[in-house]
Order: sequence, then C-alpha cells, then structure tokens
Amino acid sequence: MSSKPASKVVAPLKDELDIVIPTIRNLDFLEMWRPFFEQYHLIIVQDGDPSKTIRVPEGFDYELYNRNDINRILGPKASCISFKDSACRCFGFLVSKKKYIFTIDDDCFVAKDPSGQDINALAQHIHNLLTPATPFFFNTLYDPYREGADFVRGYPFSMRGGAPTAVSHGLWLNIPDYDAPTQLVKPRERNTRYVDAVLTIPKGTLFPMCGMNLAFDRELIGAAMYFGLMGDGQPIGRYDDMWAGWCTKVITDHLGLGVKTGLPYIWHSKASNPFVNLKKEYKGIYWQEDIIPFFQSVVLPKESTTVQKCYIELSKMVKEKLGPIDPYFQKLADAMVTWIEAWDELNSAAVAPVADAAKKDASSSSK
Amino acid sequence: MSSKPASKVVAPLKDELDIVIPTIRNLDFLEMWRPFFEQYHLIIVQDGDPSKTIRVPEGFDYELYNRNDINRILGPKASCISFKDSACRCFGFLVSKKKYIFTIDDDCFVAKDPSGQDINALAQHIHNLLTPATPFFFNTLYDPYREGADFVRGYPFSMRGGAPTAVSHGLWLNIPDYDAPTQLVKPRERNTRYVDAVLTIPKGTLFPMCGMNLAFDRELIGAAMYFGLMGDGQPIGRYDDMWAGWCTKVITDHLGLGVKTGLPYIWHSKASNPFVNLKKEYKGIYWQEDIIPFFQSVVLPKESTTVQKCYIELSKMVKEKLGPIDPYFQKLADAMVTWIEAWDELNSAAVAPVADAAKKDASSSSK
Repeated sequence: MSSKPASKVVAPLKDELDIVIPTIRNLDFLEMWRPFFEQYHLIIVQDGDPSKTIRVPEGFDYELYNRNDINRILGPKASCISFKDSACRCFGFLVSKKKYIFTIDDDCFVAKDPSGQDINALAQHIHNLLTPATPFFFNTLYDPYREGADFVRGYPFSMRGGAPTAVSHGLWLNIPDYDAPTQLVKPRERNTRYVDAVLTIPKGTLFPMCGMNLAFDRELIGAAMYFGLMGDGQPIGRYDDMWAGWCTKVITDHLGLGVKTGLPYIWHSKASNPFVNLKKEYKGIYWQEDIIPFFQSVVLPKESTTVQKCYIELSKMVKEKLGPIDPYFQKLADAMVTWIEAWDELNSAAVAPVADAAKKDASSSSK
Repeated sequence: MSSKPASKVVAPLKDELDIVIPTIRNLDFLEMWRPFFEQYHLIIVQDGDPSKTIRVPEGFDYELYNRNDINRILGPKASCISFKDSACRCFGFLVSKKKYIFTIDDDCFVAKDPSGQDINALAQHIHNLLTPATPFFFNTLYDPYREGADFVRGYPFSMRGGAPTAVSHGLWLNIPDYDAPTQLVKPRERNTRYVDAVLTIPKGTLFPMCGMNLAFDRELIGAAMYFGLMGDGQPIGRYDDMWAGWCTKVITDHLGLGVKTGLPYIWHSKASNPFVNLKKEYKGIYWQEDIIPFFQSVVLPKESTTVQKCYIELSKMVKEKLGPIDPYFQKLADAMVTWIEAWDELNSAAVAPVADAAKKDASSSSK
C-alpha cells in the first residue's frame, strides 16, 4: 500500500466492497480515481492474451486474474466465463468475498457535477445501496430518502419503508451508451445533461442495464449477475450487461428487492467502434425482440426463495422458450447452470436466505 | 383582448388548449403568467360562494363558471361535481371543447430554471404531450425524444416508436406536495432540487398525480379525468387528483397510452394548513392502503376500447371491491357513472375511438 495523503477521502464500506475492473490494457485510468479508490480492494480481470502484463499504478491493493487463472480456478466450469469480451468481469463477482461490488470500465473517468466538483461515483453508489428502494409505487419527487426530499401526498404509508436495494445503476456523461445503429446515425451526440436524480425502476419494468458504472449487493443479488456467453466463439457481444440486467430485474422483482438508476455519473471517455459493435450486436438486435417479451412474461415459482433457485428456474425457461430461436440459447441456459454451480462452489455461505444480511469476513482471498 | 406586447412569446396550440383554474379568490396570480397565458383561453371554475365576484386581470380571454352555472348546465348531474374543494376543476374539463387541457392552481407562480430564466411551464407540457411516451420499457437516459438524448443500447427497436402521451404531470419547486403528516413533521422542508428530466411512468406502475400543474390530452383521456367527490358533504378531501390519477393510469395502461412526469416546474408559493389538511385526509390515509392494491389489481376487459367504456367498468369494480370499505365508495362509483353521462351529454363527439385524432372546432362555448 502507498502512503496515504494527509487529507483523505472518507471511504465508506472499504472492507466490505470490491471494485471489479475488466481490462486488456494498462490501468493508467486509475490515477484519476486514486482519491476515491485507493482505500478499496480491486479485482482486475485481465481479458485476452494472458501472457501480456497489465500495469497497475502503484499504491493500489489488488488481485489480478487472467485466463489461465480462470481456467485453473474453475476447471471445466470455466466454460461459463466469456473470453475476449468484457463479460469476463463476472468472474470477479464470483471470486469476491465482499458484500458489495462496484464495477467500472477502464475508459470511464471521473466526471464533474454542475458546480465543477469531482463526483465520487463510488460514494454515491454506496449511498444508493444503503438506502431503501421504492419499487412498488412511483414517487414523483424521485428518491424519497434523499436529503430535502420525501414521499409525496398520496404515497401509501405502508409502502414508505421501501425495499432493500440490490442494484445501483449509474450513468455516463460525454459518450452515451448507444447501440451501433444509433452510434452510426448520431456520431457526434454527447450526453451533457446532468440529471440530479436517483430513482427506483418500478417492479415489473425492465430496463437496459449497462455494466460500465454499476454497483450491487453481492449477497442480495450477486448470483444473478452473470454476464452470459459473449465474445470469442459466441454469436453475439455487447449484450452481456443487458442479459444480466434482464435476469437480475425479474429476480429482484420476484424477491421484493429494488433496483435504482440515475446518479452517479462517470465521464465515458471514448466511443467504441460502431462498425465492430454492429457486427457484435446484430443478432442481439433482432433476438432482443423476442427476449424482452420473454422476460416480461417470466413468473418465477413461489418456492424460488433464493437467488440461486430463481436463476436455475430462469435457466430452464430460457432453454424452453428462447432455445427454439437459436441453439445459442440452449448453450446459454446450460452456462447459467454452470455459473450457479461455480457460484455455490466458491461461495459456500451463499445458499443462505436472501434476507440474511450477516456480514462475511471482509478479508479477501489472495491468489 | 388586450393589445399584445411587441415581443410576444410563441404560443403553440393556442386554439387547441384551454387553461382550467379552480379558485375562490381574485386571480392576481395571472399577472405573473401573462406572457405565457395571455394568448390562451381560460376556463375559471369558481368554488364556494357564487355571489362573490372573482376579479380576473384585464386582457385575458376567459369564461367563468360558479356553482349556479354548474347546477344550471348539469341539472341533477351536477351532483357529481364537488363543492368547496378544488376537485370542482374537472367541471372545466367537461365544458372545454379543446383537444388539450392545462390546469394550474392559483397559488402556483412562475419558477426559474437553474440559469435564472423564467420557465414557460405550458410550453414544456405541450412538448411533453406532443412527443411520444415510453411506457413499455425504461430508458435510462430519460426522455429519448429530447434534444441530445436517445434510446440507449439494449432498448428494443420495435418499441422506439413509443406510445401517444395522454398526461403530462409537472412538479413544484419551493413547497413540495406533501400530505398533512409529512407537512407536520417537516414544516420547513422546501424543494430546491431542479431535476432536469421528463420520464414516462412505466406501464403497470401507479403514481400520485397532483392536480396543481397538470396537462392532458382531453380527447385521449379527458373522460377519465374526474376528480371525484370531495369537500362539502363528503368524508374526505385532498384525494381528488389522486383518485383521477389512479383511474387515469389504469386506463392509459389498458389503452396503450403514456403518462409523463418531471418537467416543467412551477413555484408553489404557499403551504396549505396541515391541521386542516389532516382533517380532510385522515380517512384517505387509511383507505388508500386498500385503494392502491385495488388499482394495482385492476384488469379491464378487452372490450373496453374507449375511455368511457373503461371508466364505466372501473366504476363497477369500485362499487364491488371498495364499496364494502365504506358507503362513500358506493356513492363515488355512482358519481363516476354520472360523470360519464355528463361527459357524453356535453361532448357528443367524445365517443369516437381513442385513436381518432381529428381536431374539434377550436371555438369555445361562452356562457
């Protein structure tokens, strides 16, 4: 660990949260995040060529896994972890021993709020996760737990306790998270609008979850944060976070948990190549026309009282309902089962009931 | 009409929109709105003592109805229009002949945006109503039809056409719209947060609709904008707009229409008396614990293809499911039917299919 600066940023939950970063390059972007990340533990998932050395700036506490590590740790189950795609990040969720995860892409920089202050994205995510969500009724003044806000007239009092927050989905200034067709049509569009709000995605509503700037409660929903089969050897890419988001949302809805979106913003520095993206996305673009109605119709059985049980049920539905679209979905359904097997293998306490908020030992395994 | 100022604010839809204002006092507040309202027609619904004269600033084009007028025009059906409660505003919706309605309370002033500019609330409402809504899937960058925004990656392309917008629900700076208990607990809380967003309330999600700063497409949803039985002779008050909001939302959901909330803000100048409010609200506060689950469970029959048909079906469900809670709901269910009878009587073209966007003659009836 480096010597700490005299005036240190307060680091809430620093022993209970891992920062997961998938990457193929040197992590110079961490310099900018140093004041905010330095006291946290990083899990770096190195994608692509495992012989390449990834440089991590001095002073960060991290563990790094490349493909060889993934294969060694998971054995045959490593097949469920994507290669040459940022979907590999979910391996970091698997090996973490912490209660909370924040995951961020290496092209995401610190954004500024309208007053010109650097935004501590992680602190906002933690605030989002530690305050309840309101999935059962919409509050027109947005997050009622925020300073200066509350529930408005007409909001049922019995619902004001809210629900535990499982996911905090942050947004992006500068390069918006557009699909390839929109990138092609609007190459110069930049997101400059700072919307000062956090809101709960209502129960029963699906949303496009982006993995660029995302935090979640690993104990509450980690086992559903599987980013699917993408990239090398797979027919699609760039649907990894979407897949995780759809699965996560139907499961949080079923279990009475909440998903928030809005603040914090990060600065997304560079647009990926829209032509490459189009190649990765094009099957997803038409498959999603069937996938969305499928997820909108999912009803999980009452007996599915843990995330793992929900996820296994969901994998069966995926095989049955989406399998006929393309053999890919049968493979994906099998990989979902493998993921849960791997999760249970590496997280022996993870079969505890969802509501069990008992803290785990905060010391992380070191490879 | 007064002489128009040289540099005039552009007044979109000025022949297709009525501004409805319920009041018991002189309308001096209109002076502040003059640049924005002067070119529109006002419908003023005078509540309380009909012998009192309400002063309207010079230069506004208006018609004014007091209780005597309501009784004369509706005859026995006037029983469905509340007295001594701002719920009387819905009489203005009934007698309007325009396609759009904007309704505002007389203690709502012009707010300023963060740059210090006066907000033209009406223009923003019109923009909200004239662009589609997105009730079927959540867009994380909020209104995708706004300049500088779009649908994000993972948003199904088949849903990007959106749905017609039936309702635009605006918000309030300064005094937030809190219920009596919250007013009592937080007497000094002021809303100072300008959230620069418009969003669609997803399908299947209820919200607390406030009537202070509200616009809607009268052809699409007007017949459901009934503000119930409140005030004089009724056991509750301050649930008029809530009732209209719950009814409206289940009907827009059924008909595939959208409801937006967010911008524009108005400046809500004064808090109503929390002790008086508590007296008006207290039955509503416990009744709503049953009312919300009721509305959440409402499924309208496929054959209900017009707002009127939906509303009549809803009135039957109210009588059956909420009637047992209190005889008030039986009376309310009957009033809902009376309202539709009055609506059809005064709006002979209103039985046209929902999708019929044919414009009506813009000349309004003058009393």
